[in-house]
Amino acid sequence: MSLPFHIMPVSTSLDAELQHAIDNKTKPLGALGRIEALALQIGRIQGTLRPTVQAPRVMVFAGDHGVAHEGVSAYPQEVTWQMVMNFLGGGAAVNVLARTLGVAVQVVDAGVNHDFAGAPGMVHAKVAMGTRNFALEPAMSAAQLDEALERGRSLAREAANEGCQVLAFGEMGIANTSAASMLLHKLAGVPLAAAVGRGTGLDDAGLRHKLQVLERAAARTGTLTDGRLALQEYGGFEIAMMAGAMLGAAEAGLVLVIDGFITSSALLAAKALAPAVIDHAVFAHQSAEAGHAAMLQALGGSALLHLDLRLGEGTGAVLAVPLLRAACAVLCDMASFAQAGVSGRD
Amino acid sequence: MSLPFHIMPVSTSLDAELQHAIDNKTKPLGALGRIEALALQIGRIQGTLRPTVQAPRVMVFAGDHGVAHEGVSAYPQEVTWQMVMNFLGGGAAVNVLARTLGVAVQVVDAGVNHDFAGAPGMVHAKVAMGTRNFALEPAMSAAQLDEALERGRSLAREAANEGCQVLAFGEMGIANTSAASMLLHKLAGVPLAAAVGRGTGLDDAGLRHKLQVLERAAARTGTLTDGRLALQEYGGFEIAMMAGAMLGAAEAGLVLVIDGFITSSALLAAKALAPAVIDHAVFAHQSAEAGHAAMLQALGGSALLHLDLRLGEGTGAVLAVPLLRAACAVLCDMASFAQAGVSGRD
Repeated sequence: MSLPFHIMPVSTSLDAELQHAIDNKTKPLGALGRIEALALQIGRIQGTLRPTVQAPRVMVFAGDHGVAHEGVSAYPQEVTWQMVMNFLGGGAAVNVLARTLGVAVQVVDAGVNHDFAGAPGMVHAKVAMGTRNFALEPAMSAAQLDEALERGRSLAREAANEGCQVLAFGEMGIANTSAASMLLHKLAGVPLAAAVGRGTGLDDAGLRHKLQVLERAAARTGTLTDGRLALQEYGGFEIAMMAGAMLGAAEAGLVLVIDGFITSSALLAAKALAPAVIDHAVFAHQSAEAGHAAMLQALGGSALLHLDLRLGEGTGAVLAVPLLRAACAVLCDMASFAQAGVSGRD
Repeated sequence: MSLPFHIMPVSTSLDAELQHAIDNKTKPLGALGRIEALALQIGRIQGTLRPTVQAPRVMVFAGDHGVAHEGVSAYPQEVTWQMVMNFLGGGAAVNVLARTLGVAVQVVDAGVNHDFAGAPGMVHAKVAMGTRNFALEPAMSAAQLDEALERGRSLAREAANEGCQVLAFGEMGIANTSAASMLLHKLAGVPLAAAVGRGTGLDDAGLRHKLQVLERAAARTGTLTDGRLALQEYGGFEIAMMAGAMLGAAEAGLVLVIDGFITSSALLAAKALAPAVIDHAVFAHQSAEAGHAAMLQALGGSALLHLDLRLGEGTGAVLAVPLLRAACAVLCDMASFAQAGVSGRD
């Protein structure tokens, strides 16, 4: 079994000083809305009145899912490895957005059903050639889960050692909305019908079929509130490794930027393992995928962006990074009333 | 009287090609949501399949309002010029966000009640030392309005000549939410009670007083659907000059990035003068100011960001610029299914 994760709640000891600094900037009280809340959160996580967004990185975890063979996705399983090659080639949406917005991309093979031997620029962390079909049996063994969690944790530590202060998460895996829906259903008690959506574009018949498959899968187990058990039964290797990376990043004091539905499901599992991980999470984007609103509610979070994305890959997370930079700049660079010689409030 | 504004509706002749290009990028159809719609709009405005965000600039127009003497703001009028000095010094929120996100700032004295002679880095376009008190009389003369519109138009042309493709708008002017509310009320027929808000932080008593002042001001004139008349009666010099700059920027084929409540009121007036200006407008942020939702509805727009900002200055507009860059990058840099060797949809 993997080592337990030790995450202390983020200290609120600087909150009063942070709020005072924000309130004395040349603007009406609270006039920068959620940017102010973000500044406070990042300052709190980094334990400083001058927080920064150094070397932001998006880690894109890829994995295949046995349940894809049940026809729960609009795309064939090969698209997972093909899209991974697209990530490595720099042509996918996450690459393009990350390049544009100054975020580094790291692509991780957590368990894709393809041999990437020799693919340059890839982090080879494959646990197996995809999970088992969770409609019939547990997706992975306990040993595989441990491996995924530990590899994720190590990757996050390496990122921290390399100076990364903000780690964004993305994923690729045909059928992984099915896995995320199962985690939402089992860990947060959200009814399956409310937890299941169209993924990358199922039609009505496809959606009905997906729901039937997941109902069958859900009936295989009873109540699951244990994060490890839920991941083992229904997770994907990319989801489990993301959860490990989130926990490792929180241990290292990083800010986590959470993308859409699948990334949020990894955080839900991570939270079940170590609740304080939540203090480190910034929710970037509320996906158009049905169930994501319920997921955010279960996580107690509220997304910064609502742009109707339903792509994953980390695209929503990357789009939020400029907002984090802006929030830090408010604390570091804005003039106070006294500095600027501006009259205060009445 | 100023020259009429000639703005042709933006051509939709490239729409099919733009949509085809977007649909063939390696992602499910529509999976980038509003980023795709933005890519289409910018491609359409620029008339190209490869749109760009070159030399983005935020113009911050400042002006004072005679109605400030009625006590409709939580801040004294001196704050306008003090904040302008803060803009020039680079310490205000808009400066800090613009610097962080790669947007140039240009500060325009459209009519502040202060002598800025010798202030470096300022665009001196002062029409007068603030407007008259519109609770009692028209805010400005027809000649002053013409001057404001024409100066705005010239500034936009200069920006275009200097290579700016994306012009964001911001403003500063104590009491200018009152002017914006009057324009919304008169030009869009929104009831005053729904058009008036707390501005930079009025309490309940202050809000009641502001509404009473504006009811008195509204009773001074009958129905106003003419943009020029509405601006003359209730506008500010910064609002009128912004309207001129928006019209001039649209004439020059630029993308306009609209900030919050006051900037939107300038667009509302500009639209009354030349409806096609709307085709050029990207709505950056829905302000927390009461009335902005109604304003956006009157303009037929939907904001990209909802961050509870209520500052103005162009802060919301600047925060949206990375999204415009991302949208352009999707068209310019993302791989197609064929280029990436990824299997298409079923």
